[in-house]
Amino acid sequence: MSSSLTNEAIYVASRPTGIPTAENFRKGTHSVPEVNSGEMLVRNEWLSVEPAMRGWLADANNYSSVEVGEVMRSLCVGTVIESKAEGFNEGDRVMGWLGWQHYAMVKPRAIVQKITSTDIQPSLYLGVLGLNGATAITALKTIGAPKTGETVVVSTAAGGVGSCVGQLAKSMGCRTVGLTSTPEKVKACYEEFGYDHVINYKTDDIDAALKAACPEGVDVYFDNTAGNISDSVMQHLAIGARVIVCGTASIAKWDPVPMGPRVERILLTRRARMQGFIMFDHMDTYVSYISKLEELVRANTLTYREHVTQGLETAMGAIAELYRGENLGKRLVRL
Amino acid sequence: MSSSLTNEAIYVASRPTGIPTAENFRKGTHSVPEVNSGEMLVRNEWLSVEPAMRGWLADANNYSSVEVGEVMRSLCVGTVIESKAEGFNEGDRVMGWLGWQHYAMVKPRAIVQKITSTDIQPSLYLGVLGLNGATAITALKTIGAPKTGETVVVSTAAGGVGSCVGQLAKSMGCRTVGLTSTPEKVKACYEEFGYDHVINYKTDDIDAALKAACPEGVDVYFDNTAGNISDSVMQHLAIGARVIVCGTASIAKWDPVPMGPRVERILLTRRARMQGFIMFDHMDTYVSYISKLEELVRANTLTYREHVTQGLETAMGAIAELYRGENLGKRLVRL
Repeated sequence: MSSSLTNEAIYVASRPTGIPTAENFRKGTHSVPEVNSGEMLVRNEWLSVEPAMRGWLADANNYSSVEVGEVMRSLCVGTVIESKAEGFNEGDRVMGWLGWQHYAMVKPRAIVQKITSTDIQPSLYLGVLGLNGATAITALKTIGAPKTGETVVVSTAAGGVGSCVGQLAKSMGCRTVGLTSTPEKVKACYEEFGYDHVINYKTDDIDAALKAACPEGVDVYFDNTAGNISDSVMQHLAIGARVIVCGTASIAKWDPVPMGPRVERILLTRRARMQGFIMFDHMDTYVSYISKLEELVRANTLTYREHVTQGLETAMGAIAELYRGENLGKRLVRL
Repeated sequence: MSSSLTNEAIYVASRPTGIPTAENFRKGTHSVPEVNSGEMLVRNEWLSVEPAMRGWLADANNYSSVEVGEVMRSLCVGTVIESKAEGFNEGDRVMGWLGWQHYAMVKPRAIVQKITSTDIQPSLYLGVLGLNGATAITALKTIGAPKTGETVVVSTAAGGVGSCVGQLAKSMGCRTVGLTSTPEKVKACYEEFGYDHVINYKTDDIDAALKAACPEGVDVYFDNTAGNISDSVMQHLAIGARVIVCGTASIAKWDPVPMGPRVERILLTRRARMQGFIMFDHMDTYVSYISKLEELVRANTLTYREHVTQGLETAMGAIAELYRGENLGKRLVRL
């Protein structure tokens, strides 16, 4: 059956020097081959666009790079249309590393999870019930470990990860303070994601606003931006603070390494901890954390936003859009 | 009895803007008053000089400051010569917050520990069995947590804390790499403190030397310097590295905060942790950790160096000497 299918895919055409743009990709087509033993063919329904893709495409010092000529790596949700892989059957809905393409021929190790729920919209498994939600809950619990009454600051408060962090921290009894960039996002942070205080870092005096919002200092800082925003937050760390370094969205280039205020004295005098977090180190607990989030989604206590465009080719410029802050909520491509 | 005694003391005369020098202190005398109920009078025998004193004397953002007009705060070893304090008797040898002076009138809370050993030289309780040793073992075990076979880098390898860290890490089965500043210190690091590799950061190409000494990266970095030295070490962190921020000796002024290469990307890609350590947060475990070190001293498996000057007034310039790197081993003043 599969040999009659034509696949369309987005390939990496060149390695970006900073933020990847549409020019770094090209669209191509090829025939879908026969399914071999141990493989399955998945028809993609939803593709994900992640800030982390910039890192996968960078060539230096990175933890997992994608090579020029490959189909762009991506988490996707799709349905198995043919399977010669143990444990997978036609009709199974899966979330996994299926790539920016219509059809993916993969082995079981590419699958992150089978989606068994029938009452939850499948696209959520790429957002609030996907890598974003898993990152939010895993990093917050393992590194942040916030206690009731503590102050949690989130640097991309309205984003896919940040909006989930803010709601989780609030549900854990914390005071939540969000940093975001537009009046529309400020409104969403207050009304949808329940932040106690929201700071517009483009228009507010960040330092004065942080002082007012965090009179006893910042106990947990969930950082997705680095850069100037973080420099301000660091000045307000409380004794024993935990800084989760989860992303560096505000820094376009790391070669050469940009300069910033040294953090050693703050870490020393506040006895604070600053720690990098990469979700892929924590895949052993992925499904169990997602099931906690499924409960919150079913109970309508975890709100999320999706920003969807239709059509494979809309993925090509979507990473750059993320870095320009044009999305509100999880960026998805629907096929 | 005590009313006939005259005390000589070193007072803080002015707040230094950078590293404290002799000009920031003055010597004064006063009569020793009567011992009141709940107090004891201690005759000091040994005074300590610490890099941390710069922090105590700084006026901004510090965790524990000493005020102008006060006797300079210091840990000392002395002998109780009169006591109206419960649990302390004439003749008891004590280590505690007795200040840069000949006689200290203190309450029991000023005492860190009673020295009960009679086979160990008392001055050691200000060095390898004092705050330095306690800092080394507590920070290394609680934040560094090195495992057998891991690589531990120490930035002031021949210093009071660093030399102890190097030896402890070696005894835990680690590969130890020391950074120090003179040929004499390099020699001591190899011959006395047992480092596997020693780098002279003033004359060697630090980056190339670190690459050669740490082919699999740096698992634990015990940092007492910050600044350029640390910037180099950070580039060599292994996945999951732990950076203990214990001191910032290479940075003379923190106001304004000096700039350095941003650490966020390194922490993220290496999933590394950077954490400030202040010994005073860990005084509840002080005596138990010191007793572990006493065993090593008695077994002659923990080597130390002392740099002693004679006379109260020699303390005044001693902090600046430390920051000029003129000492080799724990800086002490003998009275």
